[in-house]
This record gives sequence, C-alpha cells and structure tokens, in this order.
Amino acid sequence: MSRKVIVTVAPTGSIPTREDNPNLPITAEEVAAETKRAFDAGAAVVHLHARDPDTGGPTPDINIFRAYLAAVRASCPIITQITTGGGATTLNLSPEERFRPVEELLPDSASLNAGSMNFGRKLFPNTPDIMELYAQRMKEFKVMPEFEAYDLSMVQNVDHWIRRAGILKPPYQFSFVMGVMGGIPPTFKNLLALKESLPPGHTWQAIGIGRHQIPMGIMAVLLGGNLRVGFEDNVYLSKGILAKSNAELVEKAVHIIRELGLEVANVEEAREILPLLNKS
Amino acid sequence: MSRKVIVTVAPTGSIPTREDNPNLPITAEEVAAETKRAFDAGAAVVHLHARDPDTGGPTPDINIFRAYLAAVRASCPIITQITTGGGATTLNLSPEERFRPVEELLPDSASLNAGSMNFGRKLFPNTPDIMELYAQRMKEFKVMPEFEAYDLSMVQNVDHWIRRAGILKPPYQFSFVMGVMGGIPPTFKNLLALKESLPPGHTWQAIGIGRHQIPMGIMAVLLGGNLRVGFEDNVYLSKGILAKSNAELVEKAVHIIRELGLEVANVEEAREILPLLNKS
Amino acid sequence: MSRKVIVTVAPTGSIPTREDNPNLPITAEEVAAETKRAFDAGAAVVHLHARDPDTGGPTPDINIFRAYLAAVRASCPIITQITTGGGATTLNLSPEERFRPVEELLPDSASLNAGSMNFGRKLFPNTPDIMELYAQRMKEFKVMPEFEAYDLSMVQNVDHWIRRAGILKPPYQFSFVMGVMGGIPPTFKNLLALKESLPPGHTWQAIGIGRHQIPMGIMAVLLGGNLRVGFEDNVYLSKGILAKSNAELVEKAVHIIRELGLEVANVEEAREILPLLNKS
Amino acid sequence: MSRKVIVTVAPTGSIPTREDNPNLPITAEEVAAETKRAFDAGAAVVHLHARDPDTGGPTPDINIFRAYLAAVRASCPIITQITTGGGATTLNLSPEERFRPVEELLPDSASLNAGSMNFGRKLFPNTPDIMELYAQRMKEFKVMPEFEAYDLSMVQNVDHWIRRAGILKPPYQFSFVMGVMGGIPPTFKNLLALKESLPPGHTWQAIGIGRHQIPMGIMAVLLGGNLRVGFEDNVYLSKGILAKSNAELVEKAVHIIRELGLEVANVEEAREILPLLNKS
Repeated sequence: MSRKVIVTVAPTGSIPTREDNPNLPITAEEVAAETKRAFDAGAAVVHLHARDPDTGGPTPDINIFRAYLAAVRASCPIITQITTGGGATTLNLSPEERFRPVEELLPDSASLNAGSMNFGRKLFPNTPDIMELYAQRMKEFKVMPEFEAYDLSMVQNVDHWIRRAGILKPPYQFSFVMGVMGGIPPTFKNLLALKESLPPGHTWQAIGIGRHQIPMGIMAVLLGGNLRVGFEDNVYLSKGILAKSNAELVEKAVHIIRELGLEVANVEEAREILPLLNKS
Repeated sequence: MSRKVIVTVAPTGSIPTREDNPNLPITAEEVAAETKRAFDAGAAVVHLHARDPDTGGPTPDINIFRAYLAAVRASCPIITQITTGGGATTLNLSPEERFRPVEELLPDSASLNAGSMNFGRKLFPNTPDIMELYAQRMKEFKVMPEFEAYDLSMVQNVDHWIRRAGILKPPYQFSFVMGVMGGIPPTFKNLLALKESLPPGHTWQAIGIGRHQIPMGIMAVLLGGNLRVGFEDNVYLSKGILAKSNAELVEKAVHIIRELGLEVANVEEAREILPLLNKS
Repeated sequence: MSRKVIVTVAPTGSIPTREDNPNLPITAEEVAAETKRAFDAGAAVVHLHARDPDTGGPTPDINIFRAYLAAVRASCPIITQITTGGGATTLNLSPEERFRPVEELLPDSASLNAGSMNFGRKLFPNTPDIMELYAQRMKEFKVMPEFEAYDLSMVQNVDHWIRRAGILKPPYQFSFVMGVMGGIPPTFKNLLALKESLPPGHTWQAIGIGRHQIPMGIMAVLLGGNLRVGFEDNVYLSKGILAKSNAELVEKAVHIIRELGLEVANVEEAREILPLLNKS
Repeated sequence: MSRKVIVTVAPTGSIPTREDNPNLPITAEEVAAETKRAFDAGAAVVHLHARDPDTGGPTPDINIFRAYLAAVRASCPIITQITTGGGATTLNLSPEERFRPVEELLPDSASLNAGSMNFGRKLFPNTPDIMELYAQRMKEFKVMPEFEAYDLSMVQNVDHWIRRAGILKPPYQFSFVMGVMGGIPPTFKNLLALKESLPPGHTWQAIGIGRHQIPMGIMAVLLGGNLRVGFEDNVYLSKGILAKSNAELVEKAVHIIRELGLEVANVEEAREILPLLNKS
C-alpha cells in the first residue's frame, strides 16, 4: 500500500488581503465554506488565524476564533489547528494573549514556534520560557503542538527544551517553513538538511512561502513528508494566475501526489498518522 | 517565462521483454509508432537500442539500427539518440562494435558511458581509451555525447579525460542514472550530490530505474534538470499497473511538470537548450 | 605557497568567570598581556568584551573598553575587534548602548550579529533595523563588520539587508558560531552547509563553543576558512585540563594548522586577507 | 575516555618507486624495519603489497609475500593486512592469482575492492563474482575483508552482494579511497557523503591519495573514522619535502590526533575495535 500524504490547508493567515486575492475568506462563514471545499478536495487539517470582519485585518479577539472553529466544525470533520504565533508580529500580543484561544477553544492542534527570529523586519520572540509554557499547557489540554521550525537551530530547540526537559514525549509534528525572510532560504538542499536533522519517528511537513509553496511541498512529499497549501502562504494557482479558492491549491497538490504514485490521507488516516494528543 | 523541461523517451532498451510488458515496441514500425506517440505527448528526444525482430533480444545489427532511425525520422522530427553502451553488457561487443552505428547512421546524439563499473553482475568496461575514442569520433561526426554518469566519479572522469584533455569543449549533456545495482543508490540526497558536483552551464537529466523513474525525474525537474522516461528503464505506469505505451509515461511526466508551473520543451526548444554538435 | 590561516583570539568574553578558569584575564593589563602572548603565539586578531574590574562581570562602561584597547594597542600591533552583541543578553543594553564603544574607540572591526535568536534562555534581538544601523555606521567609521551567523538564515540576512540594500559592498567577514543553544548544532555537516551557503569571495571563520572549539576550528581550516580560539568560547586546553592562558589555545591551533601543511597569517598578511575598511 | 583512533600504515604499495622517494622500503627486511618504526610511532595495522627485490616493481610472487609477512611478524605484533587488488591493474593478475597469498599466508585482513572502476587509465575489475568469492574465502579463512570503496556505489555493493546475500555478517571495515582518478573526487563534502552512506556500526578509515593524505585522514578522524598513511599513497611529509620514513607520516597523524583531544589505539585496542574474524 502506498504512503498516505497529509495535506493541510491554511486558508487565511494574518498577512494576505482581499487586494492580494479577492477570494480570501475572512468571515467565519467564508472560512468554513473554504475549509469545506478544501476538505472535499483532500485536505485533512485546517490551520486558522482570525480576522476582524470589519477591517479584514488580523485580530486577537477570541470570539472570532470561537466563531471560526464553530463554523468549521459544523462544516466538516477536518482536524483543526490554530495559530499561537500570528499575533506576535502583526499585533504585538503577549505570550499569554497569543495562547488564550488554545485553552479556551481546544483545537486538535496549535502552532508552537520553535525559536526567536526576525520575521521580515519584525522581531518574532519565542524564547524557551514561551516554548515551555506552551508545550506544558498543550500537553495539559491535549492539544498537539505543531512545532514550526524556521531554521536548523529550531529543530534542536525542540529536542533540547521540550524532549530532553521531559515536557512532552516524542514523536512530534514539525513544520519546516521555507521562504520567510529571516528564516532558512527556500532551497531543496536546505529542506533536505532540515529533514536529515530530524530524528526518525517524527511527522513533518513543508510550508513553502509564495511561489515556493508547490515545489517545496512536493519536494517534502518525495522526501517522505507532508505539505501545507493555502492563501496564508500563497495566493497564486500558477504564475500570474490568482487561485479562485484554497481548494484549487489543494487539488493541485493532490493531483501531483497521486501522479507520484502516493495516496492522500483522509481525516481518519491523518488522525492515525499525526501524534495528536486527543486521540482517545 | 517559465523554464522549459526536456522529456526524453527510451522506448525499448536492451533488457525488458514482452513478458515484462506486452506493449514493448520491438520492430522498427512499432518503435517509430511509439516514438510518434511519445513525441505527440511531449517528448523531444528519443533514446534507442536495437532489437532482433525474430528473437526480441538485443542486437548489434546495424541494419536494424538503420531501420529504426529511418522509421523514427519518417514519423516525427524528434531528436535522435542511440546507445553505445547497451551491447557491452548484453552482447559483449567490443568498443568498436558498440560505436559503429553512430558513425554510419549519424544520430543527433549517442550515449557515452563515463566510466567502468559493475552493471548488475556484469562488468561494464568504459576505460579512458574508450571514452576518448568515442568523444573524438562524436566530435568529428557532430554527434552530441550524452555522458551517462552512474556515480560521482564519472562526472569527474568527463571533466578530466574529455574537457581537460581538450577533446571536446563544454557545455555537455549529462545523464545521472539512478537505480542500477553497481551504480549510485537512487536517493534524492545522491541526486542532489550529483547535481552539485556538476559545474554550472551543463545540461542534465535524471534516469530513474524502475519505480524510481517518476520520483527521481521529478526531483531532477525541481533541481533544474530534465528527465527520461520509457520502457527501457520502467514498464509500469503506477504500482502494479503496466503502461499501455511509452506515451503514457511521457504524459504523466508532462502533467506533473505543468502542475509545477514549468513548461515542456518542444523539439525546436530542446535543440536550442541541448549542446548539440550539429546545430548549424 | 600555502594558504595563510588567520587565528583570532577572544580572551575574555562576557560569560566565563575566574571560577571557570582562574587564568581568565579581566583587567586591561591582564587582557593586554594575554593578547600579547596570543599574538606571539600566532594570533592576528583579538576579539574583546569588557569586564568590570571590581565584580569581574561584563560591563558596558566605555572607559573600560577604552582602557582595554589602549593597553592592547600598546602591547602589540594585533588587529582589534570589539563586541556589539555581548551586552544584549547579559546586560540588556539597547542597540545604541551596544554600539557606542565602536564609534568612540574605532577598533579595526566589530561584531555584527546577523539575526535575532534565542541565546540560551535569553532573547538576543538583532532585527534588520539594528543590522542596518550598525552596518551604516561601521561603513562611516571604517570599522569592518564581523558578521556573526548562528544559523543558515543569518547568512541570507546579511545578503538581503546589507548587500542587496547597498549599505556595504562585499566581500564580508563571516563568523559561524557553532554550539550556542539556540543556534545551529555544532556538527561538521552543519559547518559544511554554512560554508556552502556563502557566495565565493567572502572570508570566514568558525567559532566552536566549548569542546567544539578546536575540532570545529580545524574543520573550518580544512574547508578553507579560519578559526577563533580563546576563553570567551572555551577555557579548556584538553578534556579536564584548564588552559593556563589563551596563548596555549592559540599554540594548539597553530601546531595543527602547520601539521596540515598550511601557514599562519601574521598581522600584515591578515590585514591583506580580511576585508578591512580602514586599510588605506 | 576519549575515542581511540586507529592508524594504518601502507609502507610500499605497488606504484611508487625509489625515484619518487629513495626511502621506499622494498625488501622484506626494509619493509619489516619500516613497519616496526611505524608501529613504534603509533600504527596498529600494516597494509602490504609485495615488490620484486631485483626490479623494485610489484610482484605476485607468493614467496615474497611470505617473506614480508614473516619479517613483519618477527619485528612487532602489528595487525597484518595484504592487498588483493594491487596486482589487478599493475600485473593483470586473474582473480585467483590476486587472492592466493591470502589463503596461503593468512594475514589478519586483506583488501576486498568493492566494485569495478577505472583506476587511472586501467580497468580495475571487481565484479560481484569476484567480491563473493573473496568474501566467502575470507570468511572461511577468518581473514577480515577491508572493503575498499572508491565511490558511493561501492558502499551499496557491499551491502547488496555481501550482507544481503548472507555471505558475511556485519559489522565491516571500510576504506574510503579519495583521490584516485576514476574514483570519487577527494573533497570533504564527498567524504561526508560516503560516511553518511554507511549504516551505523561499521568501522571505517579514509585513504587520501597524494597531498590529500593528511587532510582527508584528519577529516575522517573528526567525523569519527580512522586513517591510513604511508608511501603507498603519498611519499611527502609536507609540500616539497620527502618523508624520511613511513614513521614520519604516522607521527604527523598521531600528533594531530592527540592535539584534537583523541587517543591513538594500540594494537590490542585496535583488535577490539576492528571486526576481525580471527579474534578468538
């Protein structure tokens, strides 16, 4: 039997706007509809940031997060994941503020950024104190951390501050983010280096930014990993052509995965494969 | 404008049989028909070995090579390439015998195996004497060598015995053959190492053997190279499903190339890209 | 003629104490005497942090920096370099405070940390704003930046924020810091990756922390780079044996460099090799 | 306790002459005296080729091999290893002739070249038939094969034809030969690739040819391997300076190993570390 590849969709993010792509989903209804389309196309996980329905900009408002999750859960049984990082650079939230939606809304998973860095021109602080706090609470609330690694150092950070410190037992879910200025350059050589730096047993995906989304994602698939697509990272279907919906990006990834002789994991299969903490 | 990827088809080879895949083309007519189908699907180069129409086995008979080339040339304007290596392991031909079809039939290109090795259990001798002889004659007859490298040492062999010796000026066309027992193991890491060992300016393709054909080929495409498909190296369309024709394998490669946002080079474009010696 | 390898000595740093090694130089006189010994042993560059003579702890006091530089310059003609980073994690200095000694004291070189990160448990902020400010001022004052890269992302940061922005023309001097928790893990594979990520023409050294000092430094030498030794990064001569002086570490490095068939650059040669801004 | 590094000396080989270095040992007495000096300097293994005492050239004469081994064994308790490959390219010996000294003289170890290749301009045939034959006989006679790998393909050859075929159980002793034209180019990147291609548990050394002897050997030591020195591969102590004896090369290696904080294995320790077949 062929390997099952997990496709994650990140439909909104905190940065792109309707000017970047008029099809960007913003309200809870729009996000849920996009998520349902992406789920129908093969996505097994949705990664969510909240937007203010009036301004379209990112918001820390927990009620928005609540509405998003409720609408998504009503639309399809996709695995849910919310950010704990987005507000740090765009909203200057405190670590506590960044985390609050996780413990109130209990998604299946939440991002845990694995080190401090420059995110473009902004400082993106993720010190050991923050990492430990988030990991401890996620363990307590049975929310799987999605360790986002922007460079080789961050893979080691997780091993040192989380695994060696005994906060959470492996295996973990890693995301290698390729293409943010301030993170590791988005080359295939670097993706291979990140993958080789990971001890066996963990699951992982590539998050390629902009035009790197599909190439880096497919490279990850060839190397045994998974991929994330969606407007958060890229609003184009192909050069100069805006995607009509996040589902179009999922479809493209799914086509290539199948042409490569692999299969796409459905939600049940993805629940088996991922180291979720709320499995039972 | 997107990069143009060159797809080569190797429809027959010297090893697979009708028992491996009943759709294997053997006669000149069959090979030409398959080549035309592959050309229509996007192949710009055909790589040919000759088969005895009675036994189906490989043959050194120059009349068969002649008939193949005549039929192929009549069917479509594809770039032609013939082997100088196939007969070494399957027919124990001498270096002179391996080369004769090249100088009599003047294809656009011919393979030049870039070092001695074990090919499975067989000794595959390609000493500097043979390499130099072939390169000198190919230069004389304006036939582009396709340097087949089965390991890192062979990339250096070409640089040392051909370029530094002044026999033929770069750039060259390289094929990295991944998956023959006796050659470099077919891993993405190894393909990256081969690619990185190549000075800039050369053109190259991956030849993945068996189930590695599409994954290694697509990895090559992601890394800036080209790919070869066809029954010579692989008779399956997907796991357990025999390909109905070589064109099906070309189509699969073409689909993925386009999904990756790249284009497929037609024959005229491939003639521009490749370092052919008979361009003018 | 053999390649000339540049040895830098970092005699004090901001972290080790007299309890770690009783031979740690603290006063200006001690630092100058150590620097002279290291210079006599083959060091061509000294990298300095200031210490409070009363407490022994790190200090931002510019008068201490002034006394250090005066004593060092009086002792030998070694190339001088001071930190702009040390005070960020140990003293919580502002970017302006970190930089002040550079423009007042005009050393030949000063460190320029090439990105934000976790330095152990501390946040070490080096945003593009800080990097640009330091590079502009160093250019103005003809002080060579020593770009300290703690991971692959930081090499790209320099290329993007400094070179592409036109602030300072290449070539640059890079230091690859291997072994700080929060930075890239100290493996030979990672050092090779850092080196390969650097465009040709730049000069670079490895800074191995703790027991990695000599192995990483020698690996750098084998790969065509330089190395830094000294108590700032490592207080041991060998396993369990404290170094009696920084000069012992310089001597060890010099011995190995010569056994490897290379030569050690004297100050004049190092001035030629390094991209100093105050050459003329 | 520090890792113990095994130094092998190859005092004569089949290629260098007295014109290359007048100190080349040729007679059994000379070879034994050189071996003793190398042993005293820290070598734990000696790798031997036989020379005709009259012509100085390589010889297949088993009596010469017998005299060499007798004299060496009388001089010191060093681990003995003889070639099975040298005669292939210099004397055109048959596989049987190449092997005869092994079964008659029963050294502790013998080389087993792990694939066919070009050795300079010569064909160096080491087909699976030859590899299997040698491995079976070495197992029978309790002689440890020293698998000489000249490229990545050869590491896989050993895994496929020897381990998977069940001829001999791992772990194995590997030598990575770096710098023969026809083999992998002698770069640190390539040595790392070879090392990473080896499953854990095997022992290995680097054999750097010519000026690469010490740098490649030390790189191997840094990467966790061992090294071979001696006139077979290199007759110079440093650039332009001929070594007065093989022991000088051993001494140089030993100095660097100790400066790196490692220890040199004596014969008893090397017997423990190496996967010898005649241990009990």
